[in-house]
Amino acid sequence: MPLFDLPLERLRDYRPERDEPADFADFWARTLREARAFPADPVYTPYDLPLTGVEVFDVQFSGWGGDRINGWFIVPRGADGPLPCVMHYIGYSGGRGFPHDHLLWPNAGYAVFVVETRGQGGASVGSPGATPDPRGGASAQAPGMMTRGILDPDDYYYRRVFTDAVRAVDVAIDHPLVDGARVVASGGSQGGGIAQAVTGLRDDVAGALIDVPFLTHFRRALEITGRDPYQEVVRYLASLRGNADQVFRTLSYFDGLNFAARGNAPVLYSVALMDDVCPPSTVFAAYNHWQGSKEITVWPWNQHEGGGGFQREEQVRYLSKLFTS
Amino acid sequence: MPLFDLPLERLRDYRPERDEPADFADFWARTLREARAFPADPVYTPYDLPLTGVEVFDVQFSGWGGDRINGWFIVPRGADGPLPCVMHYIGYSGGRGFPHDHLLWPNAGYAVFVVETRGQGGASVGSPGATPDPRGGASAQAPGMMTRGILDPDDYYYRRVFTDAVRAVDVAIDHPLVDGARVVASGGSQGGGIAQAVTGLRDDVAGALIDVPFLTHFRRALEITGRDPYQEVVRYLASLRGNADQVFRTLSYFDGLNFAARGNAPVLYSVALMDDVCPPSTVFAAYNHWQGSKEITVWPWNQHEGGGGFQREEQVRYLSKLFTS
Amino acid sequence: MPLFDLPLERLRDYRPERDEPADFADFWARTLREARAFPADPVYTPYDLPLTGVEVFDVQFSGWGGDRINGWFIVPRGADGPLPCVMHYIGYSGGRGFPHDHLLWPNAGYAVFVVETRGQGGASVGSPGATPDPRGGASAQAPGMMTRGILDPDDYYYRRVFTDAVRAVDVAIDHPLVDGARVVASGGSQGGGIAQAVTGLRDDVAGALIDVPFLTHFRRALEITGRDPYQEVVRYLASLRGNADQVFRTLSYFDGLNFAARGNAPVLYSVALMDDVCPPSTVFAAYNHWQGSKEITVWPWNQHEGGGGFQREEQVRYLSKLFTS
Amino acid sequence: MPLFDLPLERLRDYRPERDEPADFADFWARTLREARAFPADPVYTPYDLPLTGVEVFDVQFSGWGGDRINGWFIVPRGADGPLPCVMHYIGYSGGRGFPHDHLLWPNAGYAVFVVETRGQGGASVGSPGATPDPRGGASAQAPGMMTRGILDPDDYYYRRVFTDAVRAVDVAIDHPLVDGARVVASGGSQGGGIAQAVTGLRDDVAGALIDVPFLTHFRRALEITGRDPYQEVVRYLASLRGNADQVFRTLSYFDGLNFAARGNAPVLYSVALMDDVCPPSTVFAAYNHWQGSKEITVWPWNQHEGGGGFQREEQVRYLSKLFTS
Amino acid sequence: MPLFDLPLERLRDYRPERDEPADFADFWARTLREARAFPADPVYTPYDLPLTGVEVFDVQFSGWGGDRINGWFIVPRGADGPLPCVMHYIGYSGGRGFPHDHLLWPNAGYAVFVVETRGQGGASVGSPGATPDPRGGASAQAPGMMTRGILDPDDYYYRRVFTDAVRAVDVAIDHPLVDGARVVASGGSQGGGIAQAVTGLRDDVAGALIDVPFLTHFRRALEITGRDPYQEVVRYLASLRGNADQVFRTLSYFDGLNFAARGNAPVLYSVALMDDVCPPSTVFAAYNHWQGSKEITVWPWNQHEGGGGFQREEQVRYLSKLFTS
Amino acid sequence: MPLFDLPLERLRDYRPERDEPADFADFWARTLREARAFPADPVYTPYDLPLTGVEVFDVQFSGWGGDRINGWFIVPRGADGPLPCVMHYIGYSGGRGFPHDHLLWPNAGYAVFVVETRGQGGASVGSPGATPDPRGGASAQAPGMMTRGILDPDDYYYRRVFTDAVRAVDVAIDHPLVDGARVVASGGSQGGGIAQAVTGLRDDVAGALIDVPFLTHFRRALEITGRDPYQEVVRYLASLRGNADQVFRTLSYFDGLNFAARGNAPVLYSVALMDDVCPPSTVFAAYNHWQGSKEITVWPWNQHEGGGGFQREEQVRYLSKLFTS
Repeated sequence: MPLFDLPLERLRDYRPERDEPADFADFWARTLREARAFPADPVYTPYDLPLTGVEVFDVQFSGWGGDRINGWFIVPRGADGPLPCVMHYIGYSGGRGFPHDHLLWPNAGYAVFVVETRGQGGASVGSPGATPDPRGGASAQAPGMMTRGILDPDDYYYRRVFTDAVRAVDVAIDHPLVDGARVVASGGSQGGGIAQAVTGLRDDVAGALIDVPFLTHFRRALEITGRDPYQEVVRYLASLRGNADQVFRTLSYFDGLNFAARGNAPVLYSVALMDDVCPPSTVFAAYNHWQGSKEITVWPWNQHEGGGGFQREEQVRYLSKLFTS
Repeated sequence: MPLFDLPLERLRDYRPERDEPADFADFWARTLREARAFPADPVYTPYDLPLTGVEVFDVQFSGWGGDRINGWFIVPRGADGPLPCVMHYIGYSGGRGFPHDHLLWPNAGYAVFVVETRGQGGASVGSPGATPDPRGGASAQAPGMMTRGILDPDDYYYRRVFTDAVRAVDVAIDHPLVDGARVVASGGSQGGGIAQAVTGLRDDVAGALIDVPFLTHFRRALEITGRDPYQEVVRYLASLRGNADQVFRTLSYFDGLNFAARGNAPVLYSVALMDDVCPPSTVFAAYNHWQGSKEITVWPWNQHEGGGGFQREEQVRYLSKLFTS
Repeated sequence: MPLFDLPLERLRDYRPERDEPADFADFWARTLREARAFPADPVYTPYDLPLTGVEVFDVQFSGWGGDRINGWFIVPRGADGPLPCVMHYIGYSGGRGFPHDHLLWPNAGYAVFVVETRGQGGASVGSPGATPDPRGGASAQAPGMMTRGILDPDDYYYRRVFTDAVRAVDVAIDHPLVDGARVVASGGSQGGGIAQAVTGLRDDVAGALIDVPFLTHFRRALEITGRDPYQEVVRYLASLRGNADQVFRTLSYFDGLNFAARGNAPVLYSVALMDDVCPPSTVFAAYNHWQGSKEITVWPWNQHEGGGGFQREEQVRYLSKLFTS
Repeated sequence: MPLFDLPLERLRDYRPERDEPADFADFWARTLREARAFPADPVYTPYDLPLTGVEVFDVQFSGWGGDRINGWFIVPRGADGPLPCVMHYIGYSGGRGFPHDHLLWPNAGYAVFVVETRGQGGASVGSPGATPDPRGGASAQAPGMMTRGILDPDDYYYRRVFTDAVRAVDVAIDHPLVDGARVVASGGSQGGGIAQAVTGLRDDVAGALIDVPFLTHFRRALEITGRDPYQEVVRYLASLRGNADQVFRTLSYFDGLNFAARGNAPVLYSVALMDDVCPPSTVFAAYNHWQGSKEITVWPWNQHEGGGGFQREEQVRYLSKLFTS
Repeated sequence: MPLFDLPLERLRDYRPERDEPADFADFWARTLREARAFPADPVYTPYDLPLTGVEVFDVQFSGWGGDRINGWFIVPRGADGPLPCVMHYIGYSGGRGFPHDHLLWPNAGYAVFVVETRGQGGASVGSPGATPDPRGGASAQAPGMMTRGILDPDDYYYRRVFTDAVRAVDVAIDHPLVDGARVVASGGSQGGGIAQAVTGLRDDVAGALIDVPFLTHFRRALEITGRDPYQEVVRYLASLRGNADQVFRTLSYFDGLNFAARGNAPVLYSVALMDDVCPPSTVFAAYNHWQGSKEITVWPWNQHEGGGGFQREEQVRYLSKLFTS
Repeated sequence: MPLFDLPLERLRDYRPERDEPADFADFWARTLREARAFPADPVYTPYDLPLTGVEVFDVQFSGWGGDRINGWFIVPRGADGPLPCVMHYIGYSGGRGFPHDHLLWPNAGYAVFVVETRGQGGASVGSPGATPDPRGGASAQAPGMMTRGILDPDDYYYRRVFTDAVRAVDVAIDHPLVDGARVVASGGSQGGGIAQAVTGLRDDVAGALIDVPFLTHFRRALEITGRDPYQEVVRYLASLRGNADQVFRTLSYFDGLNFAARGNAPVLYSVALMDDVCPPSTVFAAYNHWQGSKEITVWPWNQHEGGGGFQREEQVRYLSKLFTS
């Protein structure tokens, strides 16, 4: 993979104009208000596997529109809390996978709350999922989730996803083992985009871990990558050609740039310079707009895998410092 | 593409056991009864394009659950009917496209009623579509439509699609220009599967034109092709592994073999011997179960394009003979 | 597909120097004079298919060197003319296909004259063809037609093709149902390149519809695309390396830029910004050189499919306005 | 991926002749004797990461020829043993990755000993490795490890690998926290092949977990798959054509069939029916030769990913039962 | 590449019925008679390169229809003959390349006569060619040469090619340095097919070296390979579907089986068991029909590269023995 | 393949800063001194093939560390010398192939000494090899040879390779048929990189023929190509991320730029402008640093095949002039 985006020196300063609709804040305030009208009603079911180091719960709660969302809640066995809690959001197409995929945070002394992305995980061989998106949307769509309901911000798929994610934090905070003052939003790719949105939409997130975020700086991403999932939108625009303005208007309510610009929590980003799925300029654009204290790890020779396990360890150390100091 | 399925001599006799649930007929009777509880409420809007040979209507009607379905209704300009009417169902991923894609039947003296497949057409550069499937389904799914709601026949995507298709015939028959005794169901690939289902579910179809039908003989198709869209189901089964029995139970309500076995109308099938999308044995399996008078055109050197324009002309001649004799 | 060519603002102004040989006009005058020494001798054979809306003729006429060229001539049934006539030239590798592929113009009240490109259509599953190029050329060639006879303008394949296309207009004009003052040249890709050449070579074309034209601005195209069919020439140059100057000299007699610079008819172009087969800069280069009144439709998210059915409708409206005003 | 190997009914009985050299047992006895002449000299270095649930050690020990081999040794924090210990061998091309990739067994109450495969892990983005194979081999080889030293059993790469793996068990057994009577050999693909060899070469393994094993039934594998890494050997044979007999002689000392036929420990195998990397017939061939008590999980719709996380949970339950009963 | 054709034991006996038209011999007698009406008129031009070991001539002669064919004639420098002469025919798409590509035979004491295949070599980066096929053929064709003129044996491309090849032997025999009693026909793939035809069409060939021959057992080849160039014919049949009978009739005049059945010279064949371009059953079919003394080298792990340099050395030894004994 | 590197005008002047370690010269002086401590001990074995024009010897000698290296030594039969000798180094992955692959230079009156690259040639169907690299290296590596021992210049694979190549010249010079004052270093791609190194490391090379050299201007190459073998290093860096500085330090001892800057012999380079394996800017960077008299052939439309047989003939003429004048 050759380098294809701006050189690193220019990325460091790349801070493009944002396209933010006037009623962005109102839209989200209204959205969350409506969602919270449904009781979250979390149900924690102990998971049947002979593990001795952790306790695993299959968790269900009500997200947007009262739809039930699945996840895992895992704590060190015998912990009596309150524990800091890492919210973990998932990359595109994956489901929550298996509890044993998520043992790192509990083994570092945290609770972890893994939140599924509705409608995904049905063809993810390694990370199967269980949560449908029961809303098909009011307009035709391309296969995949990127264009479901894309003609109307109210109907757009990611309105439901981001709201589910915010509601998951509500649920986590309410758990007796969780210290609500030390909740962290985390994820990579789509999961990074969701963590970014959650942090921008809440003022009580204690920290964020955002890797190679997707759903950010849409227009540039659509123009410089030839890779999915951004290309889902390009295929839609190539087919239903009269809808471009409406599409970009909808996307402006969901663009990571506008959430990053509201990000006040301490954040650890990561970016990969050969990432042609979530190009580095779209990541730096968000990072450079971030308001809170921030660090970014740059992986110069990596593609969308980003920092992988190295970044995972960076995050363990980052949170350890954050919550110790 | 090498030959990969049974040799033609064996295909001619290939008539496998069908897996038909005991309540198959009841299921469909109930389904259609429920759908017909919603008034079809068709709206015909003249389409604004300076054409002199045909009249084009953008048509909307209510299908399954009252959801609005889009289509084209095109007649020879100045026709005063009643005309025979070709119902045209669409291949996987496509929408209704443009009126000028459907001029053959009106120029042969028929009405044509093009029926969209809900939820498709959003990334079909050549054949854009306009009809959403507003139901997301009650279980996780693989990208695409093949596994939407696949854990429950009541919730399965193709229950809605086949019902829309049957309701479209209700609508067509009611149109003053249409001769309800001369309605033909037609389509290729997914459209062929839908036409096959419609013909099996109604007793008033005057003829059927079924090309390289999809959605037929699911288990064999899943085992011998490595191509989409059948592979959507394989990817689902590879991920959500506990669900195989439930999946095959659901599919048994939608398998073309069970509709073909109820097909009483005269039918013209086509099949391609190098078709690795809808393998020839799955097509012959349906054809060999068909009850009515039948013919099949075999294209020995073709893949899933099947008979293409040659078959189109065969169909014009076939219908001409059918309605003249 | 990422954007890869100049940005739209620069495309609007992109008007490169043309490389036109001094005897360009003489070459073509001589070529057409020689071709017209052969009587066109058109034969119109009614096509046997039970159509009621149109009359279809299988047409043959003599093109370059007296070689017989096949086509379709289709008119609204019962028309008594004189009708405007759309000449339709075909994209690379395709033949004339089936009459029912060409029903749009007759249903809009025009005659359509579909002209095959000699030597093509023998492996075009959707659009089979019938016209050989009986001349193999006097020099070695790469597979495909782009380098047949490429060492000598007199021997070059497109000399014969463009001449056939011009002769087809002669034939059309002579048809009693055609209004010779309202003949339009049209086509996409190679068909667009041919329409461009025909319009540059005749002064009696009433309008032109040119989509994503091929055979235009050769040197830039060879340098910025990695796609066929331009790459046929690159493969030739990579093999027979001493011939580059001679090749570019030959191509200068056939470069769409030089025909566009002679284009005086009203024209509707279209271009797609993600088209890596016929890159947008090569299209704008021609458009910006066009002499007559002109419009261009820009498809920002499309590849070589260009405007597809949308553009087809634009063209119906464009001609309607052109011939009404 | 279509089914391509024998049908399941025949796989259940597929037990081909084995090609075992007369001195197979001697060869391995000599090999291990020589290796044990080098002191294992394990060094356990605590790994610096703020984890609370486990203790992680970077372990080094001397394997074949005294070469140093890297691994992880991870135990539940605070365990005072003796613990059952899972030996974990790694799939082709991967290194040991990160400690957090191996938390399952410690969280189930076991020690885990992750053993690197020498010479691999240098281009495994997700699972980097640290152990070179300092021996280049005495004959030319294809890229990859499959043909390093393939002309002589003494020089063959997997002689060193299997020996390292056996020595790792020696090391594990000696660790004060490990219960030497409850050591389990495990791995998938190449790791499965190694676990199979280790279990065949030792009589003190308490159980084996073998997923989709590689390095098994070489001749059939080379003939029915077109996929790497088996194809490395095919490419070698296609190039250095005189060496086939010598190659198959060497491989007969390393064929999983011959180790499986010596397998006396209780074993849980898994196999995937669409696995074209390690075809199901090669897996069943080994399983059907296994001597000890045995179970096999069949994944009908999966490729080489096999049972993935589902199988991991099966294994947790299997070992729990094995060590409880 | 997995094994995909019959197993070797069955290949040894595979001798299918041939489909030979009644006038096969007459057709070829007439063809050669007509061709010989044109004087061969060979011209040998010394090639300007400072070589000391060989003398190189750029040779031109008249083949079918008097068309000029290019080649190389190379002899050991200072030879005063008469020398045995190896006719070398070329694989599909290649030209004669460079004199230094053909030094083996002159360095073994033979003359070599390299004969171009008309119309090829224009996009062969490694082996450029110079000979056009000035005849385009009287019917539409697929890109490439396989279907040029395929509707009529008289018009078919390979009629010209095989005739050129036979005429080249006429020319070679007439050269003062060549011993006409020791002329050998050789080639691989298409070159093997040509050598096979030449040997079947002449009774004065002293030996033949035929590697992985193409143009042999057409129907089976079309059905079991998915690779070019046989697929050119499949693409043609998939497009121009009414022509299959005519196509197979034409091919029966050119099928290697019918030439092999006339092959009386001593022959050394080679075949590769993983060759999916010229499948082993098509090669054995010809070999098993061969009449003369014969040997075949089987390469069990190779694809279409066949025996490569190993086979070249086999041939040197084979001819040495042939001409010494 | 589109143009992707700098335009030709800028390439002509492209002369980037070199990154040369202070002890570069010492490193190589020490390396060669150590290697020469092992006697070369060449063995020439006549090769058994009935050739009349040349004498072929299978040659073995001791290279770095005394490891035995294979090659061919071929001279015109009957030559009594002293002859100029062309050292021929081989492209990546290939072995020495067959003697008949190397007949050009002997037929031009030279000796040729073909030198294998240790560890390569084991999966090169066309050019098999026989020389292992018995040193596996002291650090983990990516598959292939590019990263073997890459953490330490003393341990790096190409230290051994370049030393073998220099020692081969020692051996050649000592041969009684060779004129030590007329030894030429030659090769393409990796072979070009080796020839470049040899010429930079010796002061007695009479000329160099360097085609599309690999192993040159590493950092730029890694950043602008996405093709192997440079990508082997990128994959390594993407996996073992902490090692980048060490890797680039090692590579600085092996970068062709530093050898080219010491090149004093007359040289003929070649470069291809569409070469994405060894990009043109990396070639011109070396060429522009070369100290001796120099020429470069530019192939504007070629990829990594470069000048192919055309360049071979250029080289024959170049050496002829060089040694005549």
